[in-house]
Amino acid sequence: MTRAELVTLRRDLHQHPEPAWREFYTTARLVDELETRNLDAIYVGPEVLGGERRGVPDDNELSTWRARAREAGAREDVLERLSGGRTGVCAVIECGPGPTVGLRVDIDGLPITESTSDEHRPVSEGFRSEMDGHMHACGHDAHAAIGVGVLDAIIETTSPNNKDTQKRKDDVDIDGEASGDTEFTGTLKIFFQPGEEQIVGGKPMATSGRLDDIDVLFAVHVGLDHPSGEVVAGIDNFLAVSHFEAEFTGIPAHAGARPADGNNAVQAMATAVQNLYAIPRHTDGATRVNAGVVSGGTATNIIPEHAMIKGEVRGETTELMEYTESKATQVLESAATMHNCEVEITTAGRAPSAASDNMLADIVATVAKDADDIDSIIRSDDLGGSEDATFLMRRVQQHGGVAAYIGIGTDHPGGHHTDTFDVDEASIGHGVEILTNSIITAENKLQKSE
Amino acid sequence: MTRAELVTLRRDLHQHPEPAWREFYTTARLVDELETRNLDAIYVGPEVLGGERRGVPDDNELSTWRARAREAGAREDVLERLSGGRTGVCAVIECGPGPTVGLRVDIDGLPITESTSDEHRPVSEGFRSEMDGHMHACGHDAHAAIGVGVLDAIIETTSPNNKDTQKRKDDVDIDGEASGDTEFTGTLKIFFQPGEEQIVGGKPMATSGRLDDIDVLFAVHVGLDHPSGEVVAGIDNFLAVSHFEAEFTGIPAHAGARPADGNNAVQAMATAVQNLYAIPRHTDGATRVNAGVVSGGTATNIIPEHAMIKGEVRGETTELMEYTESKATQVLESAATMHNCEVEITTAGRAPSAASDNMLADIVATVAKDADDIDSIIRSDDLGGSEDATFLMRRVQQHGGVAAYIGIGTDHPGGHHTDTFDVDEASIGHGVEILTNSIITAENKLQKSE
Amino acid sequence: MTRAELVTLRRDLHQHPEPAWREFYTTARLVDELETRNLDAIYVGPEVLGGERRGVPDDNELSTWRARAREAGAREDVLERLSGGRTGVCAVIECGPGPTVGLRVDIDGLPITESTSDEHRPVSEGFRSEMDGHMHACGHDAHAAIGVGVLDAIIETTSPNNKDTQKRKDDVDIDGEASGDTEFTGTLKIFFQPGEEQIVGGKPMATSGRLDDIDVLFAVHVGLDHPSGEVVAGIDNFLAVSHFEAEFTGIPAHAGARPADGNNAVQAMATAVQNLYAIPRHTDGATRVNAGVVSGGTATNIIPEHAMIKGEVRGETTELMEYTESKATQVLESAATMHNCEVEITTAGRAPSAASDNMLADIVATVAKDADDIDSIIRSDDLGGSEDATFLMRRVQQHGGVAAYIGIGTDHPGGHHTDTFDVDEASIGHGVEILTNSIITAENKLQKSE
Amino acid sequence: MTRAELVTLRRDLHQHPEPAWREFYTTARLVDELETRNLDAIYVGPEVLGGERRGVPDDNELSTWRARAREAGAREDVLERLSGGRTGVCAVIECGPGPTVGLRVDIDGLPITESTSDEHRPVSEGFRSEMDGHMHACGHDAHAAIGVGVLDAIIETTSPNNKDTQKRKDDVDIDGEASGDTEFTGTLKIFFQPGEEQIVGGKPMATSGRLDDIDVLFAVHVGLDHPSGEVVAGIDNFLAVSHFEAEFTGIPAHAGARPADGNNAVQAMATAVQNLYAIPRHTDGATRVNAGVVSGGTATNIIPEHAMIKGEVRGETTELMEYTESKATQVLESAATMHNCEVEITTAGRAPSAASDNMLADIVATVAKDADDIDSIIRSDDLGGSEDATFLMRRVQQHGGVAAYIGIGTDHPGGHHTDTFDVDEASIGHGVEILTNSIITAENKLQKSE
Repeated sequence: MTRAELVTLRRDLHQHPEPAWREFYTTARLVDELETRNLDAIYVGPEVLGGERRGVPDDNELSTWRARAREAGAREDVLERLSGGRTGVCAVIECGPGPTVGLRVDIDGLPITESTSDEHRPVSEGFRSEMDGHMHACGHDAHAAIGVGVLDAIIETTSPNNKDTQKRKDDVDIDGEASGDTEFTGTLKIFFQPGEEQIVGGKPMATSGRLDDIDVLFAVHVGLDHPSGEVVAGIDNFLAVSHFEAEFTGIPAHAGARPADGNNAVQAMATAVQNLYAIPRHTDGATRVNAGVVSGGTATNIIPEHAMIKGEVRGETTELMEYTESKATQVLESAATMHNCEVEITTAGRAPSAASDNMLADIVATVAKDADDIDSIIRSDDLGGSEDATFLMRRVQQHGGVAAYIGIGTDHPGGHHTDTFDVDEASIGHGVEILTNSIITAENKLQKSE
Repeated sequence: MTRAELVTLRRDLHQHPEPAWREFYTTARLVDELETRNLDAIYVGPEVLGGERRGVPDDNELSTWRARAREAGAREDVLERLSGGRTGVCAVIECGPGPTVGLRVDIDGLPITESTSDEHRPVSEGFRSEMDGHMHACGHDAHAAIGVGVLDAIIETTSPNNKDTQKRKDDVDIDGEASGDTEFTGTLKIFFQPGEEQIVGGKPMATSGRLDDIDVLFAVHVGLDHPSGEVVAGIDNFLAVSHFEAEFTGIPAHAGARPADGNNAVQAMATAVQNLYAIPRHTDGATRVNAGVVSGGTATNIIPEHAMIKGEVRGETTELMEYTESKATQVLESAATMHNCEVEITTAGRAPSAASDNMLADIVATVAKDADDIDSIIRSDDLGGSEDATFLMRRVQQHGGVAAYIGIGTDHPGGHHTDTFDVDEASIGHGVEILTNSIITAENKLQKSE
Repeated sequence: MTRAELVTLRRDLHQHPEPAWREFYTTARLVDELETRNLDAIYVGPEVLGGERRGVPDDNELSTWRARAREAGAREDVLERLSGGRTGVCAVIECGPGPTVGLRVDIDGLPITESTSDEHRPVSEGFRSEMDGHMHACGHDAHAAIGVGVLDAIIETTSPNNKDTQKRKDDVDIDGEASGDTEFTGTLKIFFQPGEEQIVGGKPMATSGRLDDIDVLFAVHVGLDHPSGEVVAGIDNFLAVSHFEAEFTGIPAHAGARPADGNNAVQAMATAVQNLYAIPRHTDGATRVNAGVVSGGTATNIIPEHAMIKGEVRGETTELMEYTESKATQVLESAATMHNCEVEITTAGRAPSAASDNMLADIVATVAKDADDIDSIIRSDDLGGSEDATFLMRRVQQHGGVAAYIGIGTDHPGGHHTDTFDVDEASIGHGVEILTNSIITAENKLQKSE
Repeated sequence: MTRAELVTLRRDLHQHPEPAWREFYTTARLVDELETRNLDAIYVGPEVLGGERRGVPDDNELSTWRARAREAGAREDVLERLSGGRTGVCAVIECGPGPTVGLRVDIDGLPITESTSDEHRPVSEGFRSEMDGHMHACGHDAHAAIGVGVLDAIIETTSPNNKDTQKRKDDVDIDGEASGDTEFTGTLKIFFQPGEEQIVGGKPMATSGRLDDIDVLFAVHVGLDHPSGEVVAGIDNFLAVSHFEAEFTGIPAHAGARPADGNNAVQAMATAVQNLYAIPRHTDGATRVNAGVVSGGTATNIIPEHAMIKGEVRGETTELMEYTESKATQVLESAATMHNCEVEITTAGRAPSAASDNMLADIVATVAKDADDIDSIIRSDDLGGSEDATFLMRRVQQHGGVAAYIGIGTDHPGGHHTDTFDVDEASIGHGVEILTNSIITAENKLQKSE
């Protein structure tokens, strides 16, 4: 795919943002694209997900999104393979006897209503979200495009007769003489992962078995407040995260006639929210807490019987996350007791902390120095957020492999997770170039050292 | 209609509870029924509503409920008359030159999911709500049936040739000799009012012009913790009420990476809820406050940009309600400011306090003494809640008429506004008898005094 | 004592306001005064207090106040009799074989710093409080003066040779011919009660044995938003009250270096305060809750280990008070649990509700009609507050006696319990007149009926 | 002074902990001690404090503490020099033409009641605090002793005829051959600073003029969770801090009779506390907030008119502290508005962040390697707390000098700021040795480089 085609793909995905386990259109669109190549394997949905899944919506919700995907043009035969909302896909090419390298990109969107401002490029250039109330506000549309772009670039390095090879080599600006590392001679797997935003897709993919032979894993994120032209060679300090859902149940009553007969679930919830955000800061490092979605009650004149909080806690280490989680549980339970309510707390998604391996970060930093349009290289930076890529990274590291999480700067007008977020599409090309060359270099290096 | 037929009607309405301005099935069902009688007028929807309406749902919501009504068998020609959700109906019969008497009954349901317990009679006898998440949990289904029952009973008193007259007179047990008041010789209007629960239907109906010639107005409520066989001759101390909606708007941010960049609307909402319930009690009488419906946020990992509270304040007098309302406004605005959010507060429905006229309460008390199955008569009691019947009562009283709000006891297993609420259907007959005889007695008495 | 002398006495007491169990000066001053009369008994301190006492300050605090009283001129021999802060006094005169009548007045002050405004009469006329931070802001100084005034007036009625008798009779304006009730022929006991504000003095006095022979008990309060010239014949609906003290204990920690090591007692306290005021209102009647005194923590850089709330709950009935108390306990305990703190809750003072007997209220209303300067008589009114006079009233009523709580209107510039409260001193005379004549009338009436 | 004498001095100070601007005994005791030496200057109180002082207690409070100091044996002539609570002292010796080196130690105590447990060494060995409710719970008693010890050690190095010199040199274990740096040939100033805990003493001392000629400044702290035998060569990341005091003023009212007439300052305070702790965490680094001291109200039956919070905010940088401070201000003001109260916010003490200079940290690390009993050297560590030594460090750095903050490990049974805190007195010797040798080394090094 040319870079212009990658932009077209990205914009198509941008118009169809889908949340966790509802990436029907996205998966189908990617499968469609992948099938036009001569790949060694394409694993779809259930074939690339193992173990239990959290956060699966009910059948009704799944049907609604499946129908939307169908209307948007998704292929029926692919939709049928995504049983129970098992979305995502993995593309495989075997180019030689070398090590197996993986690239993980995430593909899901967010429940944000995209800006309608004319200054927002998706509006002015006509590719604003068509899924009302949902938006690619974190760049996963670009990630998916990068995944396809890297696949194509690797294919090209392995096709000496391909008339585009020389052109590509110029494009990606690898100095053949200097490195000699211009050809990929191992196996490549691109993982298009669903459900990152809700931290529910990483674990099933990590336990699918498809990662167990991976020697080198890259993951990538655009933006993160780094401008276009900047590369972060190895991101560390992923905050460990746990999502929770607390359902408060009280007793309803007529708010005018019998207020004291009720046990007010909304009062319990509000007390909990106030105290959740007030959990003490910890000396050992950063913690986070957020009551991201709340609701309660049915009518103005009824003392609310039900209320709920969907929230999350994070920590710079898994221990700090667990400290915050344990405090949060105590707050939720005491708030319920205070208002004579019951509370049921369930954990909805969880990811550990992780770190990039130096060996890969060194490769990325070196590769970036020679790359076009890259004028700033940061050796290491904190994510300051969470990512369930950590499940995949840890899986690979536990099997003796190495992993790194790469940042590709992009000018983004609005912040991540806001309604004016957008990417500088030039950074798709930067990502393809940096990752392709890093993959080749890592593969060659490992092969030599064996 | 026989009492058995009234029960059938009540159960049909019970299966189709509809909230404010969405009483499509209910209105159509009543019009259907009323058209089988030889009435002098039937005013439908827009013909019985004046002025502005609050709390009108959007077109989407109206379409959904209209479609449900259609599926449930509502007549298309009636639905067409209920433009923009203008529901409700008024039936008129003119029986002579006497005074004009009105009876107001309300017809809307509540957003409560009805119990599925086998001990709940609507379940065991097969007439549980078919409108998921909605329920007649306050007896308005019985009120509508009483309205039709009274209409029929009055028609009978005025049809000497009607072969059922004698039977009816026995039924309603009026001692002809003693009172001589067995015939209704004025005009009767039955008002089937929408939107009582949200306090939005009373005012438009009061200002429709249809009440301006009313000399005597009755309104009725079943239950209110009074058992079957008990009658409250005149209910007083309606709490004045005002419904409000507060929409908080902050700034979203990634909850892990940039928590301090957000202005958290859910924190503002929770702070407001805590302090709303803590508004100081007032020496001058009862006040109430309820944050009945709340919601906020879109995803666990986004600092919430939006949150809202739908709530209400009440007071034993209009002044006490306004005291509470003004405190509530201050709480809402300060909570927004505290968290750097904006808040927009709108008033969604409002009703004043009112009182029953002694002259009518005396009539009801006297009539009740001779009624079958009534073994307890309470001269006067407080409602302890609110009612937008007060708009109609005040309208009539301001034009020189008299009004009373009558309580008909009914054994109800669950409390009002709870999912096991149900009525003792015998009380439908009690209501028809007490109201019919009170209407006749009041009409006769006024005619003599003119 | 002439009325001018009563005003002088009131102003002296006004300058020396003393809280519960610290009324050393006040008691000594009254004993001094009473000993100049030829009384049958003067019971001091321990002689008029039975059972356990709550709210007794520590020895240090008692010494401080005892020293202040000494400096202000209190007699050492009286101070010695007030062991352990057992303050208060009861004066007895026996005038004949008739019934025993009691009058209870309270004598304690409030922890309020009196206004220094020149518009505040105690400032402009030089009798502002000399006890810094304390003030007679509820009229108990006037009550004590009324108690002495009534004693003198009754003495006079029983002294036919006293040259002032005729004058007094004119003064108090009893129509001798009409009522014939001009002489008191029973036993009179004036109870000067300590510790009303903290609801700690009434119960010990009620259980002292000194009330067990009382046939008729009057209690009196000035003001209560009634203007000078108004009398309330019988006050009802005393709110039952319970004072509580909650001590929260957490774990301290350095607020900068180790915030998560602390368990924050101030957070627990603040959570409790927010939710105490938000205890649901009750349909059955008025309730109150107040976190009147709070404190916590020792230094800005230490996570607070200790915090406390001194508060109170009230209810229109004892049941409503207990409803609120039980909710409050739940709030306090859950708030502690939420923040990993312990809480110890103690009940510090408690009074039941009570009601005035009609028979006495009728006498007061009749007497008031003939009184000078009284232009408005209210048969019955709610207190809207609490009073531990209810312990004494209930004691008398349980022994078969009758009791009434009388309101004597007084123009008060600031509200009760505010720093500009003051009384119209003319109302001292009103109180003496109304109570004297009510006591005589009641005594005569009971004697006849025996 | 021998080490045994330093321990005696420390224990004497431990028995007399005094808070900011009340270090009367401590200052007098130190002056007493210093005057036995032949020093070049001793600057007392006002002579070593410039500019305005915050947090000065009222005259009453000053008198109380001055009286306590007098009772404990403080010299009257020194007390007289400490006008208005201007405490602290600076000792100066001039030993040659070399650079001027300063050592700052703090001397104040904390408002904590010391443990009475027999396992607490100050109890079992008889030197528990004699100032009730106050305690040296942060080691400033040891700091003062170290200050005196260093002074004596430097004096010895400069007195070749002193018969103890050789012994001292052995004691402090300087390898004469290796370093040649065994003699101090500049000017030494020891600053005994008051009011560190409240962050009020550092700024006046920094602006006194006494630091303007300092080339090298050391400050020292024991403990900080480092065990005995550990040294931290340069502490960084002092949290910037600001202390605030918020006074809420509402309107009082009788809590039973007129609750709605009050504007409740305690409700405002509690709302503020809940939301202060909930100020969003910041991505750029650590922040802290603490409502360390709160109080409000006067009596259980009065709606509280007054309430206050003494608190603090901190940040890893001055910007982060200011972010938190600005949020805190908004919370305090909005909470007041919400409850119709006024709030007056004053800043009571403030310190910037600072960092140790590498050049000095290197010297300390080198010196520590040769020191007795030191088995662990940490090059750099975060304080995780705040310190107004930063004012002095910045002052010196701004004038072109260098500064370092040294940590001397000590086994402490309880945490800092808890009632079982104590120091391992061996660490006093460690501190004297490390600091003396660092001072000599730095002085020599700077002299050579000039």
